[in-house]
Amino acid sequence: MSSGGTPLATGLDVRLASRSGTLTDSTAGFAPGYVQANLAILPERLAGDFLRFCQRNPKPCPLIGVSEVGDPTLAAIGADLDIRTDVPGYRVFRDGVVIAETTDIRDYWRDDLVTFAIGCSLSFEEALLDADVPLRHVEAGVKVPMFRTNIACIPAGPFAGPMVVSMRPMTPAQAIRAVQITSRYPAVHGAPVHIGLPEAIGITDLSKPDYGDAVEIRPGELPVFWACGVTPQSVIAAAKIDFAMAHAPGMMLATDLKNHALATG
Amino acid sequence: MSSGGTPLATGLDVRLASRSGTLTDSTAGFAPGYVQANLAILPERLAGDFLRFCQRNPKPCPLIGVSEVGDPTLAAIGADLDIRTDVPGYRVFRDGVVIAETTDIRDYWRDDLVTFAIGCSLSFEEALLDADVPLRHVEAGVKVPMFRTNIACIPAGPFAGPMVVSMRPMTPAQAIRAVQITSRYPAVHGAPVHIGLPEAIGITDLSKPDYGDAVEIRPGELPVFWACGVTPQSVIAAAKIDFAMAHAPGMMLATDLKNHALATG
Repeated sequence: MSSGGTPLATGLDVRLASRSGTLTDSTAGFAPGYVQANLAILPERLAGDFLRFCQRNPKPCPLIGVSEVGDPTLAAIGADLDIRTDVPGYRVFRDGVVIAETTDIRDYWRDDLVTFAIGCSLSFEEALLDADVPLRHVEAGVKVPMFRTNIACIPAGPFAGPMVVSMRPMTPAQAIRAVQITSRYPAVHGAPVHIGLPEAIGITDLSKPDYGDAVEIRPGELPVFWACGVTPQSVIAAAKIDFAMAHAPGMMLATDLKNHALATG
Repeated sequence: MSSGGTPLATGLDVRLASRSGTLTDSTAGFAPGYVQANLAILPERLAGDFLRFCQRNPKPCPLIGVSEVGDPTLAAIGADLDIRTDVPGYRVFRDGVVIAETTDIRDYWRDDLVTFAIGCSLSFEEALLDADVPLRHVEAGVKVPMFRTNIACIPAGPFAGPMVVSMRPMTPAQAIRAVQITSRYPAVHGAPVHIGLPEAIGITDLSKPDYGDAVEIRPGELPVFWACGVTPQSVIAAAKIDFAMAHAPGMMLATDLKNHALATG
């Protein structure tokens, strides 16, 4: 466990710091090399529909872990993991509306809840930076810009809605390299879903993202779009189901999985 | 060997038909599944420079075979191969100028010549078509459009000049898939070198290719550019070396290698 000036070096460090209340902010930059995940917690009654939704939409919703019903652990992706305390911040939804933002969901826990851990772009961004592909939002110190598209997810039960994408500006040579690199990471959104023609996927103004922050696109660059883990949270909210929980934006579930272990080859 | 109505099904079929004079035209469409290669034949005195040029510019000049000095065989890529007769048509250059077009170079053969077989886009085009990525020039029944770029090859000895690229229009989703597929084929030009911004690589008018035929680019499509095997022939001509030979356009060296055997994974 991290204490004092010690950095949060591992997924376990981040989880324990979240549990103790030491970490109550974004997990970005902590536990480098470890997979961080989007979080969705749903009643078991809807778990089958959501599993089918993820299976049908693997690019925005790549599942890296699913718990047993009512079980707050997820041993396959984290030792000593307690999903009720180990994320720095949570959102609690009723009928699609956020009714609470909290650092601890023990009071909301129920025996019928199922936890879904969904891959996150932080993993492939690390692979891109390792390959010297620069990321504008990282350089600018802002959130990646995200946009709702006109690409419809394949529905399952009450879960339906548009794919949300993140955008990173790149030169064509960087974009080609980024396709190669991110294709190796299907568990964390994989290859881009679009390059270069934002209007073709329903995005009319790149300077006005629906989530996150705008970034500059320079002459000689193309916008490159990846399916985004905001999609499942957006779909869950739109379904207006009676009860659901998720991580608060930027406050991810840090796991014991290593990013490089997700690469397919 | 092919005879009568029998198609030229293998690389050996194509070579023997070329040798016998039965085939004197383009090899496109014959020996499906077999690697066809660009051909360069140079005096041994320049072979070291050309080998260094290929090593430094592997995308336009991926070497798949190099002969012994003075030896017209290339057993590693073709059984019973005689490079002097087994290509349907040849060009003979003196001082960078074509002095002969012929179907047989036995009269030009010398004991100091070295043969270079260089990968060709027909191999990756087969992989793209297998993956249902359509190719406009194939559908239109014309030659792929090729352009000189402002991308300088890395020189070696007398060999220097701009990279020539081929262009295929694709939707962004097809372009992403094409990057994935062609990345597996570094021996036949590999991943694209550019997508989407032709002026950035010195191409001002896509309707006026420097070689081959123009093809339509439809709304919602991006031009995707691959390094092209015309580059080495262009570089050899520009070097104005005293003697060189090459295949005539479209009349490739059919080998015994299988396209799928070139895939890296």
